[in-house]
Amino acid sequence: MKSDIDRLMQDSGLEIIVVMGDDNPNPYRDYLANRARFHGLMIKKLNETPFIVASGMELDEARKSGLEVHQCFDFATDEMYDLAAYFKHLNITGRAAFVGVVDLGNALRRIADLRATLPALEIVSDEKTANLFNRAYETKDEAEIAELREVARLTSQLVRETWDFISRHRAQNSIVVDEHDQPLTIGAVKRFIREKAEVLGLDDLGVTIFAQGRDAGMPHSRGEDDQVLEVGKSIVFDIFPRSAGSGYYHDMTRTWCLDHAPDEVKAAYDQVMEIFNANMDSFRIGVDSQQYQIRTLDYFEAKGHKTGRSHPGATEGYVHSLGHGLGLNVHEMPHFSHRREGTPLAPGMVFTIEPGLYYPDRGFGVRVEDTVYIDAQGALHTLTDFPYDLILPLKG
Amino acid sequence: MKSDIDRLMQDSGLEIIVVMGDDNPNPYRDYLANRARFHGLMIKKLNETPFIVASGMELDEARKSGLEVHQCFDFATDEMYDLAAYFKHLNITGRAAFVGVVDLGNALRRIADLRATLPALEIVSDEKTANLFNRAYETKDEAEIAELREVARLTSQLVRETWDFISRHRAQNSIVVDEHDQPLTIGAVKRFIREKAEVLGLDDLGVTIFAQGRDAGMPHSRGEDDQVLEVGKSIVFDIFPRSAGSGYYHDMTRTWCLDHAPDEVKAAYDQVMEIFNANMDSFRIGVDSQQYQIRTLDYFEAKGHKTGRSHPGATEGYVHSLGHGLGLNVHEMPHFSHRREGTPLAPGMVFTIEPGLYYPDRGFGVRVEDTVYIDAQGALHTLTDFPYDLILPLKG
Repeated sequence: MKSDIDRLMQDSGLEIIVVMGDDNPNPYRDYLANRARFHGLMIKKLNETPFIVASGMELDEARKSGLEVHQCFDFATDEMYDLAAYFKHLNITGRAAFVGVVDLGNALRRIADLRATLPALEIVSDEKTANLFNRAYETKDEAEIAELREVARLTSQLVRETWDFISRHRAQNSIVVDEHDQPLTIGAVKRFIREKAEVLGLDDLGVTIFAQGRDAGMPHSRGEDDQVLEVGKSIVFDIFPRSAGSGYYHDMTRTWCLDHAPDEVKAAYDQVMEIFNANMDSFRIGVDSQQYQIRTLDYFEAKGHKTGRSHPGATEGYVHSLGHGLGLNVHEMPHFSHRREGTPLAPGMVFTIEPGLYYPDRGFGVRVEDTVYIDAQGALHTLTDFPYDLILPLKG
Repeated sequence: MKSDIDRLMQDSGLEIIVVMGDDNPNPYRDYLANRARFHGLMIKKLNETPFIVASGMELDEARKSGLEVHQCFDFATDEMYDLAAYFKHLNITGRAAFVGVVDLGNALRRIADLRATLPALEIVSDEKTANLFNRAYETKDEAEIAELREVARLTSQLVRETWDFISRHRAQNSIVVDEHDQPLTIGAVKRFIREKAEVLGLDDLGVTIFAQGRDAGMPHSRGEDDQVLEVGKSIVFDIFPRSAGSGYYHDMTRTWCLDHAPDEVKAAYDQVMEIFNANMDSFRIGVDSQQYQIRTLDYFEAKGHKTGRSHPGATEGYVHSLGHGLGLNVHEMPHFSHRREGTPLAPGMVFTIEPGLYYPDRGFGVRVEDTVYIDAQGALHTLTDFPYDLILPLKG
């Protein structure tokens, strides 16, 4: 969590971190500046509170961070990105790291200028430093948990409203129609989702997955807008919006079959739910996150499915990892992959659990996902709040 | 425009440009990849068509660009950002530039790895190279103009709907109320704007300015959500949404007074419109953009206002520049500032014209802004399509 940053800086032998920033969404700046939104940069010296250098018109906005706010003029320069001026003023000559989401060409030019002006400065760009914030993001403090609870509540409500919206339609032969007998398309459902997201203060970001049939069998397919909803087809609905207010993400997935479910979808669904529940029941502090992926691979392989371990590159069976941390980024540590090192589970971690089975050639896919939280006592809490029903009954 | 890039590379002595990319919005990649959305990078050698390196799950999405698409495996590596593998495979040892919107820590680590592996490679990070895309963005080709026309049409419609929404309210003493006598707040107007933006396929991005009275007198104030609309106060409504489909921006501003306008607002408004129209009538190919700012400063100073030239740092009078180019970024070349070098006007340029007057202590501000386009014959066209009325009449 945020209070780990000084320890992580010390581990990396860093004297200073500069958070570069422009108009782009910037989780590093959001994190250190308590989500104040301003155009400018942040400087954090080891064991000191970070401060902000902002433009004159954005001082009020920057002060919402509760941090010390400067203008470039305070450092005897009139250029906001005149890093050399700040470094000289702060008497920094040691190891410095640069982070942020930035325009790369401009950042490289500024860093090159700085190297030329202060040759004694060591600019650190090793893997450990690149991962410093990821390490801090691994666990969340109480203020962050409160934000994550709130975006979970709003996202769960959005999924509930989507369920209710679809359930107000009815079947006509094999397709789903509204009260004027007009077919309901995926595009119309996504429009509903976007509009409701807006009202709830969620940024939908245009990446919601609402994929039916064969598309549901391909984890990265987002669904085709002009496709009409059909009864008895599996629909994978995976939504990961960001709170417009706090910047924190939620991530959840449900699989729905409208009106009824074919036997093979039901069978796959039951297996996904079995390993989903087994994982939920077995989380323990200190166990490496990778163990849960291995257990899930073991389970699916024992049931006769291909996996990304038994058949690398497989496009059917269980083809992805079990979950991922999330916070101000939709993908954070810990990982739950068998190919990448895991992390021992710890209090304050927030992550998804999302087993799935994919059979595009048989026209279906199944995934169920909740976001969960490990409290200070090591107990697991589900932040997502929506039932797991497979069958969504239509009207009449 | 895009076809200038090879010439600009030659000017900078560049052999290669690498567009780095991740999940962040990335105008560089949108530009070169014709707005296909994928996770991956692009490589452009001098005088060759750029190609894409994408992850296996995003190949179809990447192919929508119409460009050649590779996986990292085609270059005998299994790491998508293994730049050294690509450079060796392509036999590149000369001058290379890196652009994009990226996670800086990761990009620096990758570039440091590349430097270590290929010491002969020269990584260029001078100002000219940092500005290479900005130079290309200066003018737009026909396909871009078509996208800019479309987002102008949608934004103008959104402003029209906002005008109509407010006009359905009525005055009650000095405040504006709905049919149930409930006060209309800026928050409610912004919610209306966000919801309509969503329906129109515009990303509002949460930065719309709808500022009243004293706030209207501060160019960077976005307005306070809990403030109730009042009759006879100036409202500055500045909206710069991005088309969700194409990624292109529009930018326009209107100043409205509900029911009636005080004399001093009217007088300021008439001056702003006079210099707005004078600028619109005088654009000529080859004239330096700075000249229009100077003319505007001359005009306002002659009328007795402070300006950013006569009183640097002034917070009242005419305190910003006249306009800016826009496209896939909301701020692009040309500039219209008296402090920064201008650019001779050229066919294909798209930019805003936005004179304004600000008197926060007298409780008002005025700004009027359209986005315009210079065609191949040098004629100026206004892309914004909305009347300039100051007074917005309320109901009854």
